[in-house]
Amino acid sequence: MLNFTMSLPTEVFFGRDMINNLPDHIKKHGGNRVLLAYGGGSIKRNGIYDKITSLLNQNGIFFKELSGIKPNPRISSVREGIRIIRENDLNFILAAGGGSVIDACKGIAAGWTYDGDPWDFYLRKTKLEKKPLPVGVVLTLAATGSETNWGSIVSDDITERKLPFRHELLRPKFAVLDPVYTFSVPKYHTAAGITDIMAHVFEQYFSPTKEAYLPDRMAEAIMKTVIHYAPKVMENPEDYEARSNILFAGTLALNQILTYGKITDWSTHMIEHEVSAVYDISHGAGLAVIFPNWMKYVLDEETQPKFIGFAKNVWDVNTTGKSSLDVANEGIERTREFFDFLGMPSSLSEFKIDSSRLEEMAEKAVIFGDLGNFKRLGKNEVLQILKMSL
Amino acid sequence: MLNFTMSLPTEVFFGRDMINNLPDHIKKHGGNRVLLAYGGGSIKRNGIYDKITSLLNQNGIFFKELSGIKPNPRISSVREGIRIIRENDLNFILAAGGGSVIDACKGIAAGWTYDGDPWDFYLRKTKLEKKPLPVGVVLTLAATGSETNWGSIVSDDITERKLPFRHELLRPKFAVLDPVYTFSVPKYHTAAGITDIMAHVFEQYFSPTKEAYLPDRMAEAIMKTVIHYAPKVMENPEDYEARSNILFAGTLALNQILTYGKITDWSTHMIEHEVSAVYDISHGAGLAVIFPNWMKYVLDEETQPKFIGFAKNVWDVNTTGKSSLDVANEGIERTREFFDFLGMPSSLSEFKIDSSRLEEMAEKAVIFGDLGNFKRLGKNEVLQILKMSL
Repeated sequence: MLNFTMSLPTEVFFGRDMINNLPDHIKKHGGNRVLLAYGGGSIKRNGIYDKITSLLNQNGIFFKELSGIKPNPRISSVREGIRIIRENDLNFILAAGGGSVIDACKGIAAGWTYDGDPWDFYLRKTKLEKKPLPVGVVLTLAATGSETNWGSIVSDDITERKLPFRHELLRPKFAVLDPVYTFSVPKYHTAAGITDIMAHVFEQYFSPTKEAYLPDRMAEAIMKTVIHYAPKVMENPEDYEARSNILFAGTLALNQILTYGKITDWSTHMIEHEVSAVYDISHGAGLAVIFPNWMKYVLDEETQPKFIGFAKNVWDVNTTGKSSLDVANEGIERTREFFDFLGMPSSLSEFKIDSSRLEEMAEKAVIFGDLGNFKRLGKNEVLQILKMSL
Repeated sequence: MLNFTMSLPTEVFFGRDMINNLPDHIKKHGGNRVLLAYGGGSIKRNGIYDKITSLLNQNGIFFKELSGIKPNPRISSVREGIRIIRENDLNFILAAGGGSVIDACKGIAAGWTYDGDPWDFYLRKTKLEKKPLPVGVVLTLAATGSETNWGSIVSDDITERKLPFRHELLRPKFAVLDPVYTFSVPKYHTAAGITDIMAHVFEQYFSPTKEAYLPDRMAEAIMKTVIHYAPKVMENPEDYEARSNILFAGTLALNQILTYGKITDWSTHMIEHEVSAVYDISHGAGLAVIFPNWMKYVLDEETQPKFIGFAKNVWDVNTTGKSSLDVANEGIERTREFFDFLGMPSSLSEFKIDSSRLEEMAEKAVIFGDLGNFKRLGKNEVLQILKMSL
């Protein structure tokens, strides 16, 4: 295994009614003037908004709201959040939602420390040097893992860019994960979240580091869990056992525990970001289209052993009488079928995306350099994968 | 999954030469007057002592030593450590060794806050109410997981008791895990450590909680890793890949990640503690004897499905043409054979332990109540397992 530093300080409060101690958790981190940030209003329909605001009110915690944070959260929301915080002298950020809301809040927390435009962090024009405002999370969607990790991904409509910003100081202080809060997530978003979780594991599993045996077995544990419960949760959205296992899988899939001791890839995510930056499609849906094509593209003699392990250990592919290449391909095919079963798209044309801007997206994808580590991808390789995905 | 709170704040610095930043880590936690605690002197033979003391000296960090901490660490060492700290006004504890040294240091850290005898914490006569001294670790043995967890187990020679004391505040602040530091661990101790790791996973895997699918798959990932690398590390003690995977497995086996969302058992550990409290045998060796007998004893119609999963998923037992009971038993047999392969004992009589004090040990084992959760065990059940283990 390669050298690494492990640190998972975010406190996760997991389970039914764990929200009840929310005021204590906020106060523990010095919060008494809160920015309550959320998305399109689903938390108002399912009662989470009422629960949070009554807990804040009962405990004398002042709050202001930032609503309307979109999927593929916009830098304009980040700017707006910073403005509200400064105007009202707020000292804590509570993200109530999924990855988009959390990612916007991380940008707000960092941007609050900085006099310039917060987009500079994403453009790598500046670095986070001061301690950001503390962020707490009430999670409503199993997907991105942002609730305990160090990343934030934000989009800019004007320049059509979607960029990541990572820093240890961006980790939320705590995250409340109540599986019941994911009962009301619609089927399509549940499926997109499941796809996102699988994609996160793929990015870490398909690694050039051959000696990280334990992290690979852990990655398989998470993938098997998601595959086991996906049909159950699609069938019965209120299956607590299924929702809870998938929720915890989503957190572990991207809290870095699968990354320790190895090099990771992330090229598929970078390619998808360019697509959703231009066409504003759902991240999970974009990944469902691109990942199987990435797999097909990078499968060669050198990478084949990894795909064989993937087929056997994750998909229980029967290898009897099959060539190694057939086994490897069957693992990829099973991945494709799994996303199909979830109702995810299998081609970009389903979003009415044509070939007109592929070249431009491939160009942007490699703007900071070639992608990936399992297999290095330059602009031409990215373009090939995009063409395969049409 | 059951409700839980996850928090893994200990910073792990994993890999070759990660010790070089040790002075920074100590200073980060306010340490400039250090108690350097270690065991029987192996760290003097393998160069770790020289490395640590030269780093401390070069960085102007004052230190006093506590040496001679034994396997099954004694409360007398804890008392001695507290005395040295008070006499020299020390403000940080550095544990250089395996689980015994770390456990003693946790007792010292807690005992320093308390005017009475530190054994009171283990006897449950008092509770930890003040912040203990910060503890840092330089790990030299893959085994107990104490380097990042909240437990301390200490023995008293006079009353022949070996007792656990657990508290969130006992977690070390950081742990340096350099796989090279485990190269010089002798075969027998390497094997005992591997047994201990497997036993920790068993205690959490064999759970009455049926819906914790993800933690079970993670437990299997860790067991498979240990089984995969045990022959390699026994064959070549300087196999970095094998040492590093086993070292990380030991940490994850008992940092609580396998416990989240489920009830755990721990009866075999409690039984073994009574044996090693009286006979001072190696903890790993005691577990190797008792665990397969515990498995045989608790296997019944109700627990059989778990043992079948264990046989199939961990030991790859071929189930074709076998009864469920045969499959379950084969998993237990494979466990026994694995410990045999490691050179671990298979009966207590190998330690010249006879039946004379079994009754007394069974009595003491249940002094705080019946044991276990996978299967509840009273005094008579414990006695049966001890008799099977003779």
